Amino acid sequence: MAFTTNKAIASFGGKLFKLSHQSTTTGTPMAVNLYLPPAALSSTNPCKVPLLIYLSGLTCTPENCSEKGFFQHRASQLGLAILYPDTSPRHPIPLPGETDAWDFGAGAGFYVDATQPPWNDEGGYRMESYITRELPQALFSDAEYGRYLQGAERVSITGHSMGGHGALTLYLKNPGMYQSVSAFAPIANPSRCPWGEKAFSGYFGTEDREGWKRHDATELVRGWKGGDLKALVDVGTGDDFYKQGQLLPENLEEAAREAGVKGLTVRYQEGYDHSYYFMASFADEHVEHAAKHLGLL
Amino acid sequence: MAFTTNKAIASFGGKLFKLSHQSTTTGTPMAVNLYLPPAALSSTNPCKVPLLIYLSGLTCTPENCSEKGFFQHRASQLGLAILYPDTSPRHPIPLPGETDAWDFGAGAGFYVDATQPPWNDEGGYRMESYITRELPQALFSDAEYGRYLQGAERVSITGHSMGGHGALTLYLKNPGMYQSVSAFAPIANPSRCPWGEKAFSGYFGTEDREGWKRHDATELVRGWKGGDLKALVDVGTGDDFYKQGQLLPENLEEAAREAGVKGLTVRYQEGYDHSYYFMASFADEHVEHAAKHLGLL
Repeated sequence: MAFTTNKAIASFGGKLFKLSHQSTTTGTPMAVNLYLPPAALSSTNPCKVPLLIYLSGLTCTPENCSEKGFFQHRASQLGLAILYPDTSPRHPIPLPGETDAWDFGAGAGFYVDATQPPWNDEGGYRMESYITRELPQALFSDAEYGRYLQGAERVSITGHSMGGHGALTLYLKNPGMYQSVSAFAPIANPSRCPWGEKAFSGYFGTEDREGWKRHDATELVRGWKGGDLKALVDVGTGDDFYKQGQLLPENLEEAAREAGVKGLTVRYQEGYDHSYYFMASFADEHVEHAAKHLGLL
Repeated sequence: MAFTTNKAIASFGGKLFKLSHQSTTTGTPMAVNLYLPPAALSSTNPCKVPLLIYLSGLTCTPENCSEKGFFQHRASQLGLAILYPDTSPRHPIPLPGETDAWDFGAGAGFYVDATQPPWNDEGGYRMESYITRELPQALFSDAEYGRYLQGAERVSITGHSMGGHGALTLYLKNPGMYQSVSAFAPIANPSRCPWGEKAFSGYFGTEDREGWKRHDATELVRGWKGGDLKALVDVGTGDDFYKQGQLLPENLEEAAREAGVKGLTVRYQEGYDHSYYFMASFADEHVEHAAKHLGLL
């Protein structure tokens, strides 16, 4: 389905497009922001650019990181597009329980395809399929926006918190789909933390906890056969959620080490918290990480 | 009165301090954010840094630009502190009419000392005195924060929209107080635009419209005797408020030209709007403008 352009905002020499489209995967309208750098929009010498997908954390919409993440700064300079999807379907008439909690349902889709009602099937909580299939396919084939992008071969992924979990798991589940991955304060072992247990219980049920492992970066990395990871992770040591054991990046590191998987860099940034202040501070470096693996650096 | 530190947030290698203090000028508690760059906070080789005061626009608090303006990015690299004051007093029990409109009263102090009741005297709408006297004096003499700063001789000022008006007028009223000035989309001729007419009518009354000129950058520049201005102004050509005649930067340019005042650079940035997306895009350059005049570049 074609995208509706609700707004185009000048940003760092390029443009941020606030888009929406009717998703067949979720069955709902979905908002998504797309940043195109000046290199793509040049009237005299336009060139197709690679794409970095940014997955947001709990409660967020496409707006938060577009405004506060500072990714456009370096993406503008290097010639990289950025896609900011939403974090869940949002039903005009909410499903039972959809808007009761900030860490489950609306704003908390966890980038998985739910198997439990009311979230599965027509419930539309199928953010994994939406992010890995429908959204990029719709974008790259779009008459208006597809022509600015290099396409499915030149995509990297990043994310924050729940979105860091999303970026890491979608990268690990789909070898070759993304040229690199990075994450800010990811929920790195959701099967073993309160946020993940709540979400997975709701979306998958509690009978097959073994099955949760297919959606857990720490478990997925044990079975990784894709060669060296191209993975950069930053975690703030002043992050309350890190201290409360919601993120567990050490478990991811240990699992990679045990499995002999190379190429995972986890940095513990002294004193940084969980906020966009933290992300903005290291956004340039995460954009550079993606740009390097997308052939821009 | 000493500052209370409500929060310290790591940002671009430095720290953003969310402060509050009881103001004798406004008679209310005032929130203010202070960013200190890594050079000031170094444990091994700390150095006192100059200060850039950022004045916010209508409806804003110290939070908006701290989160979305990206001044910290370049300030961190160059070694510049940034002060984000609030835009008005905010009475715990509002004055009559204080919170009725978004463009007058709370969040809309216009950086003047009101002469009309209930805003004058104990009404505390004395943001000009607060910004030019009480706040810097309190900060530079503060036992906790004063030691990081070079002091009153090394201060520049900038601002957005109503805050651009504030920055320009306080600079023009006080030769030598600030080493440079810059503004994003300033209300450059408030006596002649709806926002300014509403605010000045309320704060000064309508009997002495001639007296409004003492608070209007376009009028003040006619009488400027301080040598070359060190003034940088950016305005977006896609800014709806610019198109509606709320900003009138051409009037400022013309007045400076007529008065033979040099050193005013006004840039019309193609397609940019009035938002923080616009500011973030040029924040590096405005920080550099201040840094140059503060001896950092």
